[in-house]
Amino acid sequence: MRLAIDAMGGDHAPKEIVLGAMEAVKENKDLQITLYGDENQIKPILTDSKQIKIIHTDEKITSEDEPVKAVRRKKNASLVLMAKAVKDGEADACISAGNTGALMSAGLFVVGRIPGIDRPALSPTFPTVDGQGFLMLDVGANVDAKPEHLLQYGIMGSIYVERVRNIKKPRVGLLNVGTEDGKGNDLTKKAFQLLENAPIHFVGNVEARDILNGVADVVVTDGFSGNVALKTMEGVAETIFSLLKGAFMSSTKTKIAAALVKNDLKGIKDRLDYSEYGGAGLFGLSAPVIKAHGSSKSRAITNAVKQAVYMVENNVTATIQNTIETINEEEEK
Amino acid sequence: MRLAIDAMGGDHAPKEIVLGAMEAVKENKDLQITLYGDENQIKPILTDSKQIKIIHTDEKITSEDEPVKAVRRKKNASLVLMAKAVKDGEADACISAGNTGALMSAGLFVVGRIPGIDRPALSPTFPTVDGQGFLMLDVGANVDAKPEHLLQYGIMGSIYVERVRNIKKPRVGLLNVGTEDGKGNDLTKKAFQLLENAPIHFVGNVEARDILNGVADVVVTDGFSGNVALKTMEGVAETIFSLLKGAFMSSTKTKIAAALVKNDLKGIKDRLDYSEYGGAGLFGLSAPVIKAHGSSKSRAITNAVKQAVYMVENNVTATIQNTIETINEEEEK
Repeated sequence: MRLAIDAMGGDHAPKEIVLGAMEAVKENKDLQITLYGDENQIKPILTDSKQIKIIHTDEKITSEDEPVKAVRRKKNASLVLMAKAVKDGEADACISAGNTGALMSAGLFVVGRIPGIDRPALSPTFPTVDGQGFLMLDVGANVDAKPEHLLQYGIMGSIYVERVRNIKKPRVGLLNVGTEDGKGNDLTKKAFQLLENAPIHFVGNVEARDILNGVADVVVTDGFSGNVALKTMEGVAETIFSLLKGAFMSSTKTKIAAALVKNDLKGIKDRLDYSEYGGAGLFGLSAPVIKAHGSSKSRAITNAVKQAVYMVENNVTATIQNTIETINEEEEK
Repeated sequence: MRLAIDAMGGDHAPKEIVLGAMEAVKENKDLQITLYGDENQIKPILTDSKQIKIIHTDEKITSEDEPVKAVRRKKNASLVLMAKAVKDGEADACISAGNTGALMSAGLFVVGRIPGIDRPALSPTFPTVDGQGFLMLDVGANVDAKPEHLLQYGIMGSIYVERVRNIKKPRVGLLNVGTEDGKGNDLTKKAFQLLENAPIHFVGNVEARDILNGVADVVVTDGFSGNVALKTMEGVAETIFSLLKGAFMSSTKTKIAAALVKNDLKGIKDRLDYSEYGGAGLFGLSAPVIKAHGSSKSRAITNAVKQAVYMVENNVTATIQNTIETINEEEEK
């Protein structure tokens, strides 16, 4: 198994990326990792040269870069070289914690789509109260989705969750404004019909209020609404935790209380920490491409590596391709 | 000032509705309220017969009723009679904590739209960390919005916030997947252009992650995305508070901590409690129609009454109508 990793992407690059890669190869002796990035910065951190090698490049894409332009112009950027390694068959999958839009562009224009998939979907796994988690797609790769795209998301998500997260007969729900059949806007009404007839375990409409309680293993939505849901979750959680911190720091009394519940509160934060589930997959590309969170520390990178390995080992890409081919053939009959 | 209130809508009707109405008239001697509902249930609670009268009806719309059908068929339902009172000029505004869809239908088909407004918008005010709050519209009245609808939401929201919440030159933001100009789906890209040229203080795109931090006083979005944002906020907050409760109840040590921070935590919950800002206005109708939260207690009803009174006193409806007329006339030139 060979993985390509963008060592220069993310808030804590390259240090935490390199540390995460080293942790991952320790646990998997069959894994070979190539790090793309500035050798001068990577070498002082890297202590493993057997399973990890460096391909040096000075160029990198920043979070301020305009994604499509950056991928086209910065041909030697670490993120682009990483994607090219996958395209050229030198790596089985790739991971970046860098510019999300640039990774989507590189995925689309360098790695390329699975034949029959119209639009790739950005697909993170979110925590649920029961610790099981759910996959949501799309959260922003395609902001003008059509019903057929949502159908493909349902199929891709179901295959991923079954193969990688080992959930049998995953429940696929459609994010909507109400749970009753027939609810929704034009897009979701049409997508509902398509999902109902797809070879998946479709459980109907689900509401944003219930998804953290685990009403579905896969939640399908258009990239605009999914992005709103994702960022609302992040914003509300951050706001509440920052208010809590303020409350606990307000007096001696509350500071004592804080000391008493510190570990329990940390437990809650950990439970809501989605880096435990790896990164967001860019599903629908001809090889696994993983977007690790921009704030990824080494642990999140190690988890993203595991996720990429599972995706390759369990033939997620080939299974998606075969399933979509079968559906398209049946439609043509 | 005459208000019509559906005494039978909401989880705590009629008791909390009646108590809320009584509290409101105590503070406002010019206010006359008519309660629509079951006299036998209302009378034992009602101790004020000078400013509050009852119009008896046995019929009511439940939360399970299909909205449009219910409004058409249950002609004597408390919610329908309340809306009819506004239509017939017997009341200046109305309030219900009942079935949201039914209230939207009654608003549209009984009360009627402001000429020139294409679609009414359901518009709650959400809390922000600084206590100022922001208005979001639409959160579900119109799930297939067009760019022109979003323009009208921006104008209506700006007028409401300026007149009722007394915020000068309210900042109007467009909910989007990124803050940069040019971001978004087809709908938001077109709406951006229209909002930029509208007679409002448009501050551009805002992200769901930042709205609780008060980046805008008015957040404009389509009813589908707005509904997703609303329900995600509710879901995440509920989940975190329920996890916190579990953590605080887990041992003797944490129970002691809970006792020490009880008031401070209650302060946070209160700060995030949007019933303090009244109910959700259904903007774009020819009189103020307020949807109080289904779980409203008396205090939320009192706040919704104040909100309706401010809307009437400050001529929100007439101002919206005049502004829209001016814009439409200019367009025709």
